[in-house]
Amino acid sequence: MSERMKKLINRPEVLAWELQEGLVAAYCDKLQMVGNHIILRRQPKAKGKVQLVLGQGSGHEPGFAGFVGYGMHDVEVSGQIFACAGPDRILEGIQEAHRISGGGEILLLILNHEGDVINGSAAVEMAHDEGINVAPILLYDDIASAPKGEEKNRRGMAGTFFCFKVAGAMAEVGANRAQIMQMVQKVNDNTRTLAVALRPCTIPTSGEPLFYLAEDELIIGPGVHGEAGPEGPAKMMNADEVMDIVLKKLVDDGEFKRGDELLVLINGCGATTLMEMFVLFRRLQANFDQWGMAYYRPLIGNILTTQEMAGFSLSICKADAELKRWWDAPADTPYFKVCQ
Amino acid sequence: MSERMKKLINRPEVLAWELQEGLVAAYCDKLQMVGNHIILRRQPKAKGKVQLVLGQGSGHEPGFAGFVGYGMHDVEVSGQIFACAGPDRILEGIQEAHRISGGGEILLLILNHEGDVINGSAAVEMAHDEGINVAPILLYDDIASAPKGEEKNRRGMAGTFFCFKVAGAMAEVGANRAQIMQMVQKVNDNTRTLAVALRPCTIPTSGEPLFYLAEDELIIGPGVHGEAGPEGPAKMMNADEVMDIVLKKLVDDGEFKRGDELLVLINGCGATTLMEMFVLFRRLQANFDQWGMAYYRPLIGNILTTQEMAGFSLSICKADAELKRWWDAPADTPYFKVCQ
Repeated sequence: MSERMKKLINRPEVLAWELQEGLVAAYCDKLQMVGNHIILRRQPKAKGKVQLVLGQGSGHEPGFAGFVGYGMHDVEVSGQIFACAGPDRILEGIQEAHRISGGGEILLLILNHEGDVINGSAAVEMAHDEGINVAPILLYDDIASAPKGEEKNRRGMAGTFFCFKVAGAMAEVGANRAQIMQMVQKVNDNTRTLAVALRPCTIPTSGEPLFYLAEDELIIGPGVHGEAGPEGPAKMMNADEVMDIVLKKLVDDGEFKRGDELLVLINGCGATTLMEMFVLFRRLQANFDQWGMAYYRPLIGNILTTQEMAGFSLSICKADAELKRWWDAPADTPYFKVCQ
Repeated sequence: MSERMKKLINRPEVLAWELQEGLVAAYCDKLQMVGNHIILRRQPKAKGKVQLVLGQGSGHEPGFAGFVGYGMHDVEVSGQIFACAGPDRILEGIQEAHRISGGGEILLLILNHEGDVINGSAAVEMAHDEGINVAPILLYDDIASAPKGEEKNRRGMAGTFFCFKVAGAMAEVGANRAQIMQMVQKVNDNTRTLAVALRPCTIPTSGEPLFYLAEDELIIGPGVHGEAGPEGPAKMMNADEVMDIVLKKLVDDGEFKRGDELLVLINGCGATTLMEMFVLFRRLQANFDQWGMAYYRPLIGNILTTQEMAGFSLSICKADAELKRWWDAPADTPYFKVCQ
């Protein structure tokens, strides 16, 4: 067995199922599994409240199967490693939401990746044919993947977590789908993400590295599946230098300015120590202080990983009183909690 | 710069301070820093309640600086990377606890590592000279580091988290120190931990790998600083094989049996994916089912890491109704929460 496949797994062809089964078994007080590996809350929301459904790929744990639960989403349909669930399974998830809500409104959250959009859109169409009341919303935040002015072509990265949190909080207290979609669109429009990779992961189903990178290089702007950024590799830098570059690009792109208050997420790609993320945050704070900007209840940790890739992504989102209220609202899922 | 030092840090000599400053800056609604990098709760417990103090090394984040807060510990004194804080700084932490509690009881939790014991004991002695009411308690759980019958020589590993949780919950509701120490000793005595390493980390202050391991090998029984286990390296195995071996050793050593209910912690060493940990848990569940044993609200994630080491540790602890109540009690810290 080569170093590159040094992972504690069993057969790659059942890996996605086994990991989902393990997750649900461990957190069986919060989660349950039905049908074709559809993950639901153990205690569903009351009928009539908007059901939030997500179809995506596995391999990015805890995102987003680990965030099913109170104050977050209701139905998770995870596909194979780095491959979005197929339309049939996403439809099955939507049908479950339809059943749980008693025919109420359903929102399908789609991270902007080709497979997710194709499969999610097909599932929505099939659900409409069955008379199910579901609408999709597209989430995108990665400034490396399309230039300013073409925001809708940007990839969905860890910053979409802000949208999930807000949607979950609003749905929990009974907001209707139009209200949720309006607020999620605003949060999405105010969010900017940029990633940095230092070392690739191994794709567990193929044993191949996700990309190649010299020992003295890093990449600014990779996607969550190792998609290239707009720039080639750069020479290795220290933490402060990297944060200065990444933060400047985000602030420029988002036109954030003195006096702004921002949500901040430093997302670990998988093998990045919290130690490094704290050192990075320290520099962000110094820059914010200098620029007259403030952060609000930041989140630092592994949210949307790329296996054991080394690196991080930084997401910032302009906050107002309403957004801060939804950000602070209670949540109780296996891998994200806000206690009250 | 070599691959081995490919970390996002600045100067290694200030790394521990920078990471602690970043942690406190990010979670400033929950934490504050005083004096010589002593980390305290932002909202201290009421006077008279037992203060819980910990002195240890940095580099294992989130353990345990990330667990300061409601329902967990009160004062954290983190040293340099993999090196326990010195007696003077631990004393400073104890003095802070003394001030906060208004002269009440203080408990110093010590993970059994040579430096931690020496420095903690010296700090307790100095505090006693000042008339401060502090007592230490030693925590140990790693079955690889000393044989059955010599439990007190075992290293303190991730399973000590069970003790921290219980101590924190009891102190929060006003239990006195004797009560807490009695229960913590019981939890400690009922806990067993064993680790597995697949790939070393790089020590960020030296740039050296923590240990050497062939590409087709793993180690069963390493310590949290790469200390060797009782056995040499073994050939690489799949997830089910590894879990079978580790779980059997723990169950035998702890003499756990049919009908037992157990707390379970799968702790990621740093670069281990949740994917792998879920697959491991799935096998634990299958074994428990076969053996007539049950698990209670397991915890899977990075609790006490060794930088970006690949591997995990498994901790199990025999639970009764009282322990389950303390395990379920509310907690609200940056990296561990129990909502109610």
